[in-house]
Amino acid sequence: MSDLTRADGRTPEQMRAVTIERGWSEQAEGSALISFGRTKVLCTASFTPGVPRWLTGKGTGWVTAEYAMLPRSTNDRMQRESVRGKIGGRTHEISRLIGRSLRAVIDTKALGENTIVIDCDVLQADGGTRTASITGAYVALAEAISWARAEGHIAKKAQPLKDSVAAVSVGIVGGTPMSDLAYVEDSRAETDMNVVVTGSGDFVEVQGTAEGVPFNRAELDALLDLALASASELSELQRAVLSEAA
Amino acid sequence: MSDLTRADGRTPEQMRAVTIERGWSEQAEGSALISFGRTKVLCTASFTPGVPRWLTGKGTGWVTAEYAMLPRSTNDRMQRESVRGKIGGRTHEISRLIGRSLRAVIDTKALGENTIVIDCDVLQADGGTRTASITGAYVALAEAISWARAEGHIAKKAQPLKDSVAAVSVGIVGGTPMSDLAYVEDSRAETDMNVVVTGSGDFVEVQGTAEGVPFNRAELDALLDLALASASELSELQRAVLSEAA
Amino acid sequence: MSDLTRADGRTPEQMRAVTIERGWSEQAEGSALISFGRTKVLCTASFTPGVPRWLTGKGTGWVTAEYAMLPRSTNDRMQRESVRGKIGGRTHEISRLIGRSLRAVIDTKALGENTIVIDCDVLQADGGTRTASITGAYVALAEAISWARAEGHIAKKAQPLKDSVAAVSVGIVGGTPMSDLAYVEDSRAETDMNVVVTGSGDFVEVQGTAEGVPFNRAELDALLDLALASASELSELQRAVLSEAA
Amino acid sequence: MSDLTRADGRTPEQMRAVTIERGWSEQAEGSALISFGRTKVLCTASFTPGVPRWLTGKGTGWVTAEYAMLPRSTNDRMQRESVRGKIGGRTHEISRLIGRSLRAVIDTKALGENTIVIDCDVLQADGGTRTASITGAYVALAEAISWARAEGHIAKKAQPLKDSVAAVSVGIVGGTPMSDLAYVEDSRAETDMNVVVTGSGDFVEVQGTAEGVPFNRAELDALLDLALASASELSELQRAVLSEAA
Amino acid sequence: MSDLTRADGRTPEQMRAVTIERGWSEQAEGSALISFGRTKVLCTASFTPGVPRWLTGKGTGWVTAEYAMLPRSTNDRMQRESVRGKIGGRTHEISRLIGRSLRAVIDTKALGENTIVIDCDVLQADGGTRTASITGAYVALAEAISWARAEGHIAKKAQPLKDSVAAVSVGIVGGTPMSDLAYVEDSRAETDMNVVVTGSGDFVEVQGTAEGVPFNRAELDALLDLALASASELSELQRAVLSEAA
Amino acid sequence: MSDLTRADGRTPEQMRAVTIERGWSEQAEGSALISFGRTKVLCTASFTPGVPRWLTGKGTGWVTAEYAMLPRSTNDRMQRESVRGKIGGRTHEISRLIGRSLRAVIDTKALGENTIVIDCDVLQADGGTRTASITGAYVALAEAISWARAEGHIAKKAQPLKDSVAAVSVGIVGGTPMSDLAYVEDSRAETDMNVVVTGSGDFVEVQGTAEGVPFNRAELDALLDLALASASELSELQRAVLSEAA
Repeated sequence: MSDLTRADGRTPEQMRAVTIERGWSEQAEGSALISFGRTKVLCTASFTPGVPRWLTGKGTGWVTAEYAMLPRSTNDRMQRESVRGKIGGRTHEISRLIGRSLRAVIDTKALGENTIVIDCDVLQADGGTRTASITGAYVALAEAISWARAEGHIAKKAQPLKDSVAAVSVGIVGGTPMSDLAYVEDSRAETDMNVVVTGSGDFVEVQGTAEGVPFNRAELDALLDLALASASELSELQRAVLSEAA
Repeated sequence: MSDLTRADGRTPEQMRAVTIERGWSEQAEGSALISFGRTKVLCTASFTPGVPRWLTGKGTGWVTAEYAMLPRSTNDRMQRESVRGKIGGRTHEISRLIGRSLRAVIDTKALGENTIVIDCDVLQADGGTRTASITGAYVALAEAISWARAEGHIAKKAQPLKDSVAAVSVGIVGGTPMSDLAYVEDSRAETDMNVVVTGSGDFVEVQGTAEGVPFNRAELDALLDLALASASELSELQRAVLSEAA
Repeated sequence: MSDLTRADGRTPEQMRAVTIERGWSEQAEGSALISFGRTKVLCTASFTPGVPRWLTGKGTGWVTAEYAMLPRSTNDRMQRESVRGKIGGRTHEISRLIGRSLRAVIDTKALGENTIVIDCDVLQADGGTRTASITGAYVALAEAISWARAEGHIAKKAQPLKDSVAAVSVGIVGGTPMSDLAYVEDSRAETDMNVVVTGSGDFVEVQGTAEGVPFNRAELDALLDLALASASELSELQRAVLSEAA
Repeated sequence: MSDLTRADGRTPEQMRAVTIERGWSEQAEGSALISFGRTKVLCTASFTPGVPRWLTGKGTGWVTAEYAMLPRSTNDRMQRESVRGKIGGRTHEISRLIGRSLRAVIDTKALGENTIVIDCDVLQADGGTRTASITGAYVALAEAISWARAEGHIAKKAQPLKDSVAAVSVGIVGGTPMSDLAYVEDSRAETDMNVVVTGSGDFVEVQGTAEGVPFNRAELDALLDLALASASELSELQRAVLSEAA
Repeated sequence: MSDLTRADGRTPEQMRAVTIERGWSEQAEGSALISFGRTKVLCTASFTPGVPRWLTGKGTGWVTAEYAMLPRSTNDRMQRESVRGKIGGRTHEISRLIGRSLRAVIDTKALGENTIVIDCDVLQADGGTRTASITGAYVALAEAISWARAEGHIAKKAQPLKDSVAAVSVGIVGGTPMSDLAYVEDSRAETDMNVVVTGSGDFVEVQGTAEGVPFNRAELDALLDLALASASELSELQRAVLSEAA
Repeated sequence: MSDLTRADGRTPEQMRAVTIERGWSEQAEGSALISFGRTKVLCTASFTPGVPRWLTGKGTGWVTAEYAMLPRSTNDRMQRESVRGKIGGRTHEISRLIGRSLRAVIDTKALGENTIVIDCDVLQADGGTRTASITGAYVALAEAISWARAEGHIAKKAQPLKDSVAAVSVGIVGGTPMSDLAYVEDSRAETDMNVVVTGSGDFVEVQGTAEGVPFNRAELDALLDLALASASELSELQRAVLSEAA
């Protein structure tokens, strides 16, 4: 797409090194430690038979997510939200995004009356924490569903996962559309877009924001192209990781 | 686009009746009571000379927004967030969206070291409260800037407003892309998209979410077409309202 | 009582223009938008079958109220209580006053095991917000009771309303007792009194406070006379408004 | 007024045994342990040179008050407000009442730029906790002012106290107006009135509430008569206690 | 142990005057006002039949404790924790310590499915508030258990109290081990240790902290000797107080 | 001490495998990922020039610590403290313990007016999280001090670290004193003791608690012997890790 190179030597369309370590937690029903370059997120999935009271008896399950950052995951230490006594707007917004993204690929009927809570805790942050969270959360979720099937909480033939889901941030930096923005790129991007895509290439979420100058239809199209290509790589990696023994 | 009609008789591409009453508040520096059908939002702009401490001395202004719903704006009464002692995720998310949308059309240098706080309080809710809020907030903001110029807080020649901004929700309901969803439509939409557009037709925000089935590129394109057309109508109305005497 | 005139041309015993718009909300079971001059309060009544757990099975209903001000209802913007994370003393005090005033004219046995929550949200504040709230809340309450009777939640012959209730603020300003104080009057009053009176002219609440100089028995008597006269006018208006078709 | 006797043998116009123990706290600048029968309140006055920022440089002082109940001051244990994480409406209302009552007899100019915080902590509650608090708070306040004069924080000739202040609850119980209601009387009173009166017999606050049946003008007058008589006794006791050596 | 004398004339191993006033509260099921010199703590025990939901049906009771300080118990007024909206670390820590200490001498099976909540409210603080609280709490607890047995909530032969419990603070001040530190001693101690001891002389808690210089094994041993001796005196006093008629 | 073996094959006096990975975080001034068997804690040290306002100008630095657990670090998922809106008693208590332990080996004068905040976030919990936190926190602290010296924030010759510090939990399980309890051991221990020891073998904290049966002097002595031996091993490991290149 361009022969420009970035601070870390990547081409505009290139993602950072992505690694996913399955089963990092020895206690959770599913877990993954995912890295997008220096960004590291620990994703755990907690499976509990039963659903919240307002869902009881409807024959459907529930998947929800919570996102948080360790206070010193960032370059300057942030105050803990538990100490401030309330959760900030950005945290809420990302938690809700992760939950919606996962629910888009879950068949809650097939899940049965079971609850899965995904926790995405950012251990180190260098841009793309929400997209890494979604991508890693899917792996933890898939592990937890395998566990639940093995334990008999979910019927052998039930297929609660309709598809996989991954996410990537793309943006226009210095006039050039780029994939998987690191923090320094993100902070000077003119437009920033988080795109959540299924394994079969459809959109679950498209969240584009003009940070400086509003963007036009052609720029929007270029960003979507980039996002679909990167998301496809992530889906491939998820598949590979999940096909290994845990 | 379609000859389907909706519960309230509209065609898919048709917005509800939109009205904007300028200067509704006798005490705020700017205000507008905006209706999108039964959805009614009171938008006020509070102008204060000076900026928060972290901006002092940088020669730039600050615009921020807060969104809230009256407890009985909805069909069933909700608990007040002041009573629960914390602000929910959805409220935070919408407040942040309104603020970002307004800042996209503000030249903070031209605003000078002044602060404008926009409050969008939903008096009655029937879908589209966030898009009505953004559209009304722009009118309140423009009024406050006129007031500040008249009062000498902003230089006569300064143009803090680079463009206008309006927003509309579009979605796919029963397979058909539709504009300006009412609550009953929104609650059964397969895809829901909020689009924030400048007066000159560029995007400030695109937030599309698959509620049920993920959406493909062609559906995304159809929704963007609808959104641009409706936003253009809203920009026209804003212009008309602001050209009247307050 | 005096031939003094006030800033807005009223005589000491004269109230501001009072208007009550019934059924302002299309979704609440009862509602009224009430104005005392520039003071505007939106009162809604939310009817729910059933009572809180601690009342279940006692055969009596429950009426409660919550009062709040929009952040820019006042001359200077106030911080939202939801943002501060707690409700201030004044808000609590007024919410409790409204609730007590309404319960004084409710026969909770006749209401049956039903709950009515009244919300009084001040859209614009120019003194007298608590008295306008009580006066408007009664109209919303009466509407909700009519609705509940029509819907069969309350027996046809049950009379949950034993009387009507209205409220007025009176005070001594510059040595002269005056009725229905506007904000500028209230802020320089020597004594400030809120009086809640039934349609039949008995007292529900008398809350008199010396802001500067303590007041003597004769002054107290003069204020009570004024309050009873103004309250009688308000009762008349409530009756007229409620006798119209909604 | 009546030859009726009450559960504890008092006549309707008779107060319970009232005792005031000055200087109960060895660390506060002023303090009093006051009892109205079984109701016991520890009142302390904390004197600090200087005023809150918003008052600095105006040459006036500040007096404020906080009221609280120990969790087992009552017959059934209440949850601590510190544990619930917020202060209830009743607590706020009484704290504000105590503060207003004291400020009514303070000349803040004569106090100079000094702050006095009064704490009224109910150790045992049997009705009348707010009136006992006000009555005891005045003694603690007077002690703190003497201390401040002795320490040179207040000029020798300054007279920050313009008058004394005391309070009593009166009410109509079973049709009979009575003074200084104990808890069992208060809980079945038709009308309950708290009256705050200066040493010279003028009103600072009159707060009358119909708990059951609204009250008429004649009943109001009878209650005010009772309140003035009891308040006069309390003023006398305050004077006596303060004339003893601390 | 030493012929050094302290500011208040005590020898290093000597406690301050300790008094325990049983039944101070007329409403609680058990209570004690305890003084260690100027430190005064009001301890109440609230007995309720039944246990929290998570214990129901297990045949065991529950004992818990809450500790708090009045805002002006200290030399400088502290902000109330109810006003700050959260409970500080120190308060939590001491509440938990008191609860654990009492549970160490309770046979929860013999208590049956009953709950006892102990409140320790510091009325005046001069060091040793947590140890005075534990020592007084035991007396209130014992009273409440006697009350419950008399009322038939606990079987006549049941012995919920396996032993008594008392606590003392010891420390090294200026190189000398001392018992029952007053505030001025505590604030300059090199090592501070709170020791909770049963009536039969075993340890329930040992909490030693080096404030300045770490301490060695010999110093630790000297402090434990002192603590056991003082705790023995406190046990004796508890026994004496509880053998009197309430 | 005994030939008993434990569930994981250890002898009573044997610690679990302990590993310390220095510099785990690429952004903090100091960091260590420490494991005591399955217990894993990420410790970071954030260095900031300057001190809180109340310390300014006194020439001394400040070291403080915060402890938290990831919601799924435990076997069953816990609710986040940020979601509950307040920090629990146990969290506060451990944060305070870590801070005190580190301050015991810091010369705050030599640190100069600089602040170091230590965060200990438990990624996986299997008993001993507070002792692992203290032991890892020391390594992060030492790294941050080296960094600050290299950056010139601390004088080349200043020695803010007076000694090292480590901690271990010991306890009596089934009658046998054991070192470094895993969760299953800890939960059935009769006595549980956390001991914080300097590199030179003196005590900083001794916190022993009888969970079931009170403990006697001989048992206390046996536990202290065990703790000193294990702490010595930890000190050795800290020294080794810190002597490696970061």
